[in-house]
Amino acid sequence: MRSPILMPTARAAVQSLGASQIREIANAGIDDPDVLPFWFGEPDEITPAFIRDEAAASLARGETFYTHNFGILELREAIAAYVTRLHRSIEPETIAVTTSGMSALMLSVEALVAPGDRVVVVTPLWPNLVEIPKILSAHVTCVALAFNARGWVLDLERLLAALTPDTRVLMLNSPNNPTGWTLTRAEQQTILAHCRKHGIWIIADDVYERLYYGNAPCAPSFLTLANGEDRLVSTNSFSKAWAMTGWRLGWIVAPPPLMSDLGKLIEYNTSCSPVFVQRAGVVAIERGEPTVARTLARFRSARDYLVGALAESPGVEIAAPAGAMYAFFRLRGLVDSLMFCKRLVREAKLGLAPGSAFGPEGEGFVRWCFASEMPRLAEGVARFSRFVTTHYSP
Amino acid sequence: MRSPILMPTARAAVQSLGASQIREIANAGIDDPDVLPFWFGEPDEITPAFIRDEAAASLARGETFYTHNFGILELREAIAAYVTRLHRSIEPETIAVTTSGMSALMLSVEALVAPGDRVVVVTPLWPNLVEIPKILSAHVTCVALAFNARGWVLDLERLLAALTPDTRVLMLNSPNNPTGWTLTRAEQQTILAHCRKHGIWIIADDVYERLYYGNAPCAPSFLTLANGEDRLVSTNSFSKAWAMTGWRLGWIVAPPPLMSDLGKLIEYNTSCSPVFVQRAGVVAIERGEPTVARTLARFRSARDYLVGALAESPGVEIAAPAGAMYAFFRLRGLVDSLMFCKRLVREAKLGLAPGSAFGPEGEGFVRWCFASEMPRLAEGVARFSRFVTTHYSP
Repeated sequence: MRSPILMPTARAAVQSLGASQIREIANAGIDDPDVLPFWFGEPDEITPAFIRDEAAASLARGETFYTHNFGILELREAIAAYVTRLHRSIEPETIAVTTSGMSALMLSVEALVAPGDRVVVVTPLWPNLVEIPKILSAHVTCVALAFNARGWVLDLERLLAALTPDTRVLMLNSPNNPTGWTLTRAEQQTILAHCRKHGIWIIADDVYERLYYGNAPCAPSFLTLANGEDRLVSTNSFSKAWAMTGWRLGWIVAPPPLMSDLGKLIEYNTSCSPVFVQRAGVVAIERGEPTVARTLARFRSARDYLVGALAESPGVEIAAPAGAMYAFFRLRGLVDSLMFCKRLVREAKLGLAPGSAFGPEGEGFVRWCFASEMPRLAEGVARFSRFVTTHYSP
Repeated sequence: MRSPILMPTARAAVQSLGASQIREIANAGIDDPDVLPFWFGEPDEITPAFIRDEAAASLARGETFYTHNFGILELREAIAAYVTRLHRSIEPETIAVTTSGMSALMLSVEALVAPGDRVVVVTPLWPNLVEIPKILSAHVTCVALAFNARGWVLDLERLLAALTPDTRVLMLNSPNNPTGWTLTRAEQQTILAHCRKHGIWIIADDVYERLYYGNAPCAPSFLTLANGEDRLVSTNSFSKAWAMTGWRLGWIVAPPPLMSDLGKLIEYNTSCSPVFVQRAGVVAIERGEPTVARTLARFRSARDYLVGALAESPGVEIAAPAGAMYAFFRLRGLVDSLMFCKRLVREAKLGLAPGSAFGPEGEGFVRWCFASEMPRLAEGVARFSRFVTTHYSP
């Protein structure tokens, strides 16, 4: 056998990227039809027919050629009008259509982060945000939220202290996956003022902004506070609010001076998104508000039910999340959430994501995606309670 | 006005990435309906109906969810069978489906290239291959082909001398965009032996392998010579042979020890390709051989016609390319191909790509994509000859 050093392997920084523990659990149970999965962050509904039909019509018309790197003008205009309606007046020229919200994040980091740069994130956090800067050889510093009876809270002073003048980028995902933690307007004002002072970029992962259970059409956004001269990049996606996970369509709102360089990076990463997918995006935005409203109502009911039911399970500490589509709860005495979730899959036929997948602060917790119809959730709760009562004594 | 240093701009390495001179020409004429464009590398035909229909059927079935990072098993199996038929026995486990051949290249470079690494390319070359490693902060060394009456030729000794023991990656695009230059089997053997000796990776951009005018079903490939322990990554795309540019679908063949890290990078770049696009890829491969054969026959006729016609234009030095879909020819005395192509667009209503877009070795040349129907090509030749005869005296 050849020594590992001689094997054709990736560079060290890539080898040390974290692999997803969510995938590890899913791989253990995805082929078992008896398992009820709530591990992925994916709504359980098929994309609405009017959106799918638009893509099919585009294909029938023969729209199978390259588009502009930034996307077709109709979609950029539709997104600009949408962002303008929600946040502040935005021109189509500051919108870049991307091949997923994931790609939007990668492109933003490629544009801004050089080797050795300091990047700050707030955790627990879905793993991708923490790993992406490492692909660009950056140093990632984590600032942990605290968990109490009211839910997850940010120690703002601690975050500001971590945002040293030599910090290049602050990456924030609010409403947050996995915790549902959501920045307040006042916190955003303080953070923006601090970042302005030190020239720190903010990359805001806003994919859950429409899944917000407060008294507003969307979660508080840096876009409302910032202007076109601020170092703010907002990334977004059609995946969650319009049930379009499989379409891989997202967008970036960026300051005008960043756009031409973003264009080059899109060319060198994916070149453009398929026209027929972009056409679907146009109708999703223009005719999809009832879909978004219905999705939010469904998820709100699911959240209320799941949080209530789990709160009655022995050993569970849980608070209703302000946004997103996850219950991220503590099980008293739990020290190895990965092992626990593996046992859940094997023995209880229930698929949840281990808290440790979202950083060391997540250990002792479990993530449950509630973007699901009620009978499935109820059956999941029954399996969970049975397992915890029988096999687990906190 | 704020000083540029205070403006929200990209990092220096990204600002200094080359922007495409092809786009510069296209932007100057793309809105003029009188311009005949041959600037992009894109077949002029709509994707065949049986491929589009499959995507529409998948959408109708409601296939709108995430897939495995590496793609659906049916597509990986179809690609593995295809590669096995063309080159050597390959398992589906060594195939990664990607969101375009472009993304396949970016992922491969992310997997292998660390900041400061030495990357060698052979030029003239489409700009993306030269710029991608720079996003990862690598140093790119160019080895120039030479042009003579028989066409573009490689000085193999010069390439081997450039492949120093500290070289991390050799990136090759054969058949080549823009020159049509195609590596011989003997050259590949020598290069592979040299790279084996020094542990140098080869990233082979094989998107034109089926557009080969030699006496074989595809161009010579490193895949045939190498084995699963070699440091070889082959990237490919559905864009050219199946007329699927706008679909953004490609694939990677990689050594088994690289796969798990590639999986992480796909998760952090795009997560997966749309299922309905992947379904289209399955039928393209399984039922698309007549399409590939017809495409090749069309392009061969177009090549023979265009090369013959241009050879009769004053001052043109041209040789028939062995592969790909471009005539890359010298115009004697031409010193500023960008300016020349701008004048062509404005004054002759003809859209060609300047040779300087493909590196300094390309200056004095012009690229003409001949993936076009014959009457359009003939009208293009007439405009070219008229312009050169009237305004340009070599």
